[in-house]
Amino acid sequence: MIIITQPHATEAQIERIVARVREFGLDVQISRGASRVIICVIGSAELAKEKPLAAMPGVEAVIPVLKPYKLAAYEFRGGASSIPIGNVKVGRTEHVALISGPCSVESQEQILSIAQTVKKAGATILRGGAFKPRTSPYSFQGLGEDGLRFLAHAREETGMPVITEIMDPRDLPTIEKYADCLQIGARNMQNFSLLKEVGRSRLPVLLKRGFSATLNDLIMSAEYILKEGNMNVLLCERGIRTFENAARYTLDLNAVPILKSRTHLPVVVDPTHGIGLREFVPQMALAAVAAGADALMIEVHDTPEIAKSDGEQALTPDIFEELIPRLRAVAQAVGRSL
Amino acid sequence: MIIITQPHATEAQIERIVARVREFGLDVQISRGASRVIICVIGSAELAKEKPLAAMPGVEAVIPVLKPYKLAAYEFRGGASSIPIGNVKVGRTEHVALISGPCSVESQEQILSIAQTVKKAGATILRGGAFKPRTSPYSFQGLGEDGLRFLAHAREETGMPVITEIMDPRDLPTIEKYADCLQIGARNMQNFSLLKEVGRSRLPVLLKRGFSATLNDLIMSAEYILKEGNMNVLLCERGIRTFENAARYTLDLNAVPILKSRTHLPVVVDPTHGIGLREFVPQMALAAVAAGADALMIEVHDTPEIAKSDGEQALTPDIFEELIPRLRAVAQAVGRSL
Amino acid sequence: MIIITQPHATEAQIERIVARVREFGLDVQISRGASRVIICVIGSAELAKEKPLAAMPGVEAVIPVLKPYKLAAYEFRGGASSIPIGNVKVGRTEHVALISGPCSVESQEQILSIAQTVKKAGATILRGGAFKPRTSPYSFQGLGEDGLRFLAHAREETGMPVITEIMDPRDLPTIEKYADCLQIGARNMQNFSLLKEVGRSRLPVLLKRGFSATLNDLIMSAEYILKEGNMNVLLCERGIRTFENAARYTLDLNAVPILKSRTHLPVVVDPTHGIGLREFVPQMALAAVAAGADALMIEVHDTPEIAKSDGEQALTPDIFEELIPRLRAVAQAVGRSL
Amino acid sequence: MIIITQPHATEAQIERIVARVREFGLDVQISRGASRVIICVIGSAELAKEKPLAAMPGVEAVIPVLKPYKLAAYEFRGGASSIPIGNVKVGRTEHVALISGPCSVESQEQILSIAQTVKKAGATILRGGAFKPRTSPYSFQGLGEDGLRFLAHAREETGMPVITEIMDPRDLPTIEKYADCLQIGARNMQNFSLLKEVGRSRLPVLLKRGFSATLNDLIMSAEYILKEGNMNVLLCERGIRTFENAARYTLDLNAVPILKSRTHLPVVVDPTHGIGLREFVPQMALAAVAAGADALMIEVHDTPEIAKSDGEQALTPDIFEELIPRLRAVAQAVGRSL
Repeated sequence: MIIITQPHATEAQIERIVARVREFGLDVQISRGASRVIICVIGSAELAKEKPLAAMPGVEAVIPVLKPYKLAAYEFRGGASSIPIGNVKVGRTEHVALISGPCSVESQEQILSIAQTVKKAGATILRGGAFKPRTSPYSFQGLGEDGLRFLAHAREETGMPVITEIMDPRDLPTIEKYADCLQIGARNMQNFSLLKEVGRSRLPVLLKRGFSATLNDLIMSAEYILKEGNMNVLLCERGIRTFENAARYTLDLNAVPILKSRTHLPVVVDPTHGIGLREFVPQMALAAVAAGADALMIEVHDTPEIAKSDGEQALTPDIFEELIPRLRAVAQAVGRSL
Repeated sequence: MIIITQPHATEAQIERIVARVREFGLDVQISRGASRVIICVIGSAELAKEKPLAAMPGVEAVIPVLKPYKLAAYEFRGGASSIPIGNVKVGRTEHVALISGPCSVESQEQILSIAQTVKKAGATILRGGAFKPRTSPYSFQGLGEDGLRFLAHAREETGMPVITEIMDPRDLPTIEKYADCLQIGARNMQNFSLLKEVGRSRLPVLLKRGFSATLNDLIMSAEYILKEGNMNVLLCERGIRTFENAARYTLDLNAVPILKSRTHLPVVVDPTHGIGLREFVPQMALAAVAAGADALMIEVHDTPEIAKSDGEQALTPDIFEELIPRLRAVAQAVGRSL
Repeated sequence: MIIITQPHATEAQIERIVARVREFGLDVQISRGASRVIICVIGSAELAKEKPLAAMPGVEAVIPVLKPYKLAAYEFRGGASSIPIGNVKVGRTEHVALISGPCSVESQEQILSIAQTVKKAGATILRGGAFKPRTSPYSFQGLGEDGLRFLAHAREETGMPVITEIMDPRDLPTIEKYADCLQIGARNMQNFSLLKEVGRSRLPVLLKRGFSATLNDLIMSAEYILKEGNMNVLLCERGIRTFENAARYTLDLNAVPILKSRTHLPVVVDPTHGIGLREFVPQMALAAVAAGADALMIEVHDTPEIAKSDGEQALTPDIFEELIPRLRAVAQAVGRSL
Repeated sequence: MIIITQPHATEAQIERIVARVREFGLDVQISRGASRVIICVIGSAELAKEKPLAAMPGVEAVIPVLKPYKLAAYEFRGGASSIPIGNVKVGRTEHVALISGPCSVESQEQILSIAQTVKKAGATILRGGAFKPRTSPYSFQGLGEDGLRFLAHAREETGMPVITEIMDPRDLPTIEKYADCLQIGARNMQNFSLLKEVGRSRLPVLLKRGFSATLNDLIMSAEYILKEGNMNVLLCERGIRTFENAARYTLDLNAVPILKSRTHLPVVVDPTHGIGLREFVPQMALAAVAAGADALMIEVHDTPEIAKSDGEQALTPDIFEELIPRLRAVAQAVGRSL
C-alpha cells in the first residue's frame, strides 16, 4: 500500500498516519518529494484497512499495491483451472466448449427438440432458464421446477450436461436435484447472499459479469464463491452498458485476455447478449474464439418469433449449424479446437 | 405499439406480421411510406408480446408507445404519494426529509452516539447497515442481528425511525422485528426474488438505483414491489457509473425531475455515495434539494478514520451541523422546508 | 512519480529502471515489499517522460504524484480567477452570471428580440451561434459572418457583451471583430490547433467539456490555452454521455465542486444541453447554482417550434422569466447573488 | 417520421401539428389509440425539420424512420466500396490490409527502420504521426513537416504508401505533398471544419471513431466528407470510453458487423489503442479479423521504452512478426486473406 499525502500535510498529520499504520503491525518507508510525502507500507497489508487511512487528515490518496483477490488470482494456482461441467471440461487447455440452448425452457418438447438440434450441430452443454430474471414483472418469469424437470429430461435423452440460472438462495436444493452447473446472471453478480450460497454447492458456477461491473468487481464476486470452498467457477463476459445504443450491450472482448492474465478461471463469452441482434451474433462468436474464449454460450431457438424471451437475438438452427465449422476453423487458427 | 418494417419487406411478410398482431386480439392501421411500412397497433398491447414481433422476418423495429410500468406511473395515482416511515412522511408535498447515520452499525454506543448527533442537527430518520454488501468477501460484512438490535435501541432512545438494508429474502422476518423501513441496495436493484419478498412486507421500501440502471429499469424494479401489494416505495438516486474517474460515481441529478414526472413515488438523493468524497458531499446535497429531492440520505460518522466502511465519504458531525441551515435555506428557496 | 514493479521483476530489470530514472537527473528511493518493489522518484519529474518508463520490462505501473497541469491549478494563482467578459466579471467571488440567448442566430430581428427579452429578465451576457457544429451536414450550419453582425447589433442595442462559438482557427480574425468571448464547443474540446489559436487571442474563452472528457482532460485543454498566454478561460460543464437514455446527456454536477477545488478558473454550467428537455431545465439550473456554479448558460427562444436548432430544449421567455427569482433565491441561500 | 402525442394532447394541438407537417409539403396518416395519437408522416421528410416538431405543444416524441445519412448508406452504392491507398486497395472483397508503423515519426532513421521491419513482416501500408494530438501541451507534439519528409523518404525506400494524421485544415496543402492517406483522429471526429476540408482533398481519409461517438455519429461525420465529393473514406474503430478501467479504452468490436451492415465503407480496427496494453494487442487483433475487419492498424516500435508517445502499447518487432501468421490463419478461417 502506498499513501500519498496532501501538499500541505503537516508533520503532525504525517506522524499520526505513520502511527496508525504501525498500529496495524506494518512497517513504513518514507520518501519526501518537493511537495508531497510518499509513505510506502511494508508487510501484508490487510485490505479492509485501506479505507480508514484514506479518511485521515492529510491523506491525498491510498494506492493499493496488492491485488484485492487471492483465491481467484492466477498466481494462486500457478496455472489455469480446468472445470468439469458433467462430462465436459472447460478450461484453457481444453477444447473450446460450446454451451447452447434456448433462453427459457418453454415446454418439454421445446427444450428436447432444441437440445437435439444443438447437439447435432456440435454443442456439448445445454443451457435453458427455468427461473428468469426479467426487467418487467409482467414478463414471462419461467416455468420453475417444471422447467428443471424438462431440462433433466433433455439431458437424459441427449447426454448433454445442463446449466441453468439460480436467482434465489432458497432454490438451491431444488436446482441441485436437476442441474450440472449453476448460472448466476448479470443482475445478481453482486447478490452476495446468493454468491455465498452457491459457494457451498457441489456444482460448478458460471458467473456472468454485471453489465456495469469492472473486471475486478467480477473477480471479487468469484472470490466470494471460492472463499466458501467451491473452486469451480467460470467467468462469463456478456456485454456491458455504454453510451452506444446501436446494440443492446457492448461486448467487451478486452475482458478475455485481461481476465485470463489475472485469474486461473476459465473465461466464457456470451455473444448472444453481448450484441443482442441475431444477424451479428455469428461474427461476435468468431471474434470471441479468436480473442481466446474458453467457451461460448449461444442462444438458439427453433421458432424465435414465438419465444417467450429474447427471441430477437436467438440464432435459428440453420444459422447455428452453418456457424459451427467457421468457429472450428477460427479455433484451429488460434491453436485450439472446438 | 408501432411496427416499422425493413425497406425490402415483402407483402407476404407484412401480411404475416399483421396476422400475428390480430391473433393477439389487436387492430392495426397501416401507413405506407416510400421505402417502409408503418404498422400502428391499436388496443391495449400486452407488453410481453412485443419481443416476438421484433423477431419476425421483415420487421426493422418495434417501438412501444405505452410506458412499460403501470402502478408506478404518475397517472396511476393522479398525484404524488406520501409515504410514512415511522412517524415521518416522505413525499412531494412534505418537508424534505433528512435521513442520516453511519454506513455500518459498529456498536451500540457508536450508533446511539451518532443518532443523537444527527437528530440534534436536524435529521429525522436514522440509517445504519447491519447486513453490508461489500465488493470484497474480506471486508467487514456487518453485525447482523446484533446491529439491528443496536439500531432499535437507538430508535428507543431518540424516537427516530430506522432504515436498514436487506440483502437476503430469508432475513425479512428478522429485519421486520426491528426496522421501520427496508433498504434495497444498488447491487440488488434487480434481485427480483428480493423485490418480490419485500413487496409482501408491511414496511416501506427505499429502493436504490443500480449504478448502471436506467431510470426505467429503476421504475420497473419498483413495479415488482408494488405489484405484490406494497405501495410504499421510495426511489433513491445514488450515483451511476460513467467514464469519469474523478469521483467514485457520477451523481445523476437529471434523475430527480425525470423520475418525478414519470412516477408518483418520492425521490430520495444520496449525495454521499453520489460523489463519494467527503469534502464535496455538502455541495451535492444542496444541489439535490434545489433539483427537487423529497429526501436526502447522508452518511455521518463521528470518527471516519476508524469507520468499518466508507470512512472517506462520511461527513463529520461538525460539517453536518454546519450544512443543515444551508440546506434549509435552499429548501425554502425552492418552496419546500426541511 | 511512483514506479511499481511486477511481482517477478528481476534485479537486472529493476537496476535498468533505476538507471533510466537517474538518466533523467532524478533521484530514487526504493521500498521492497513481499512481492513487489516500489520505486519513489524524487525531483520535478517531467510529465512527458512517464510513458516510456511504463514500457520498460518489469514495470507494472507508473503512478504520477504531481498533477499534470500547472497554469490551471488552483495553487498556481493561490486564489480564484475573476474573468471579464465585456463589462461583466465571472468568478467565484462575483455575482453568478447569467448567459442567455438562442442556440443559433437566425436573423437580426430574432437575436435582438431575444436579447431584449433575456436582458429584461435578468441575463447579463448574450449568447448566440453563428458557426454551428451539427452532427449532420444536412442541418442548418449557421449564418456565419452575418450572424456575427446581428450579434454585434444586438450588443449595441442592449449593452450586453456577446459570446459566440468558434469552430475553425481561420475564423478567429473575423470573430474577434464582433465578439466579447469565444466559445469552444464540446466537440472541439480536444481540437488542439483551435485551442492554441484562441490561446493567442485577446478575448476570453469559454471552454465546454467534451461529452466524454474527464475533468482532467478538460483542465488539460484549458492548459493549452493558458500556455499560449491567454489566462482568461472559463470551464463549462454541459452534460456527458452515459448509458442513461432518458435525457440526451447526463449533467455532471459533481464537476462543479471538483473543478473548483482543482483550478482557479470559473465554472459555468449549461443545464440546457445538460438535460436537453425544456421542462426540466429549470430544476437543473437551480441545482447548478446550489452546487456552486459561477455562471449559468441557458438557451432561450421566443418560438422554439420554429428554431433552426435545439428547439426542444430552449426555454420560452415566460418560463425563463419565472425562473429568475427562484435562481436568485437559491444563489442567496448559498451565499451568492445573481 | 412518426409523431407520438402526449396522453392529454388537445384536438387543437393535434390540428396544429398536422398543419405544420402539411406546411412542409408532407402528408399524414393518423392512428388514434386509447390514450395517444400517432401521426405517421408520409413523404421524404427532410431531416432538419424533425426538431422543431418535437418542440410543439402536445408532442411526446418524434421518431425518425429514415436513416439520417445518405451517401454513406449501404443502399447508396448497393455494394461495398473498395478504396485505394496508394497501390493498396482496402475493402470487403479485398485482402485484409495491414497498416503498421510507430505512433510518432521520431527521426528519419527510426521511421525507415520500422517501415522496413513491418514491411518484411507483412504490413502493406505505413503509418506514422507528424502532427500529434496530445492531451497535454507539455507532451511531444510531433516533428511537423520534417516528420512528413521522413515518412515520404520511408515510402520511397520501401514502396509502402503512407498514412498520417491531419489536425488543422491549414496543414492540408503541406500534408498532401507527402501522404497517400489522411487520418482524422478520434478527438477531431466532429471537427466539422476539418471534415469539410479533407472532403475536398484528392486523398482518401481514414476517419477514427471519437471515443464517445455512437456509430451513427461516426457515419454522419463520414457523410460530411462524402458530401464534399471525396468518396474515399474508411471508418476506424479504436476503442470507446466506458466505466471499465482495466484498459485505457474498450475496443467495441460490435462496431464491425454493425458498420458493415449500415454502410458501404471499409471498416478498419485499431487494436493498439482499443486495448492500450501491449501484451493484449495480439488477441484483439485476431478478434478484429474474426469479426470481419477490412484492415488492421497496429503500432510497432523497435524500442518502445524510449518512444516519444504511446510506448506502452506498441508491439515490438518480434511480437509483431510472430502475430502475422496467426492473423493470416484467422483471416483464412473467415474466408479472407491477409
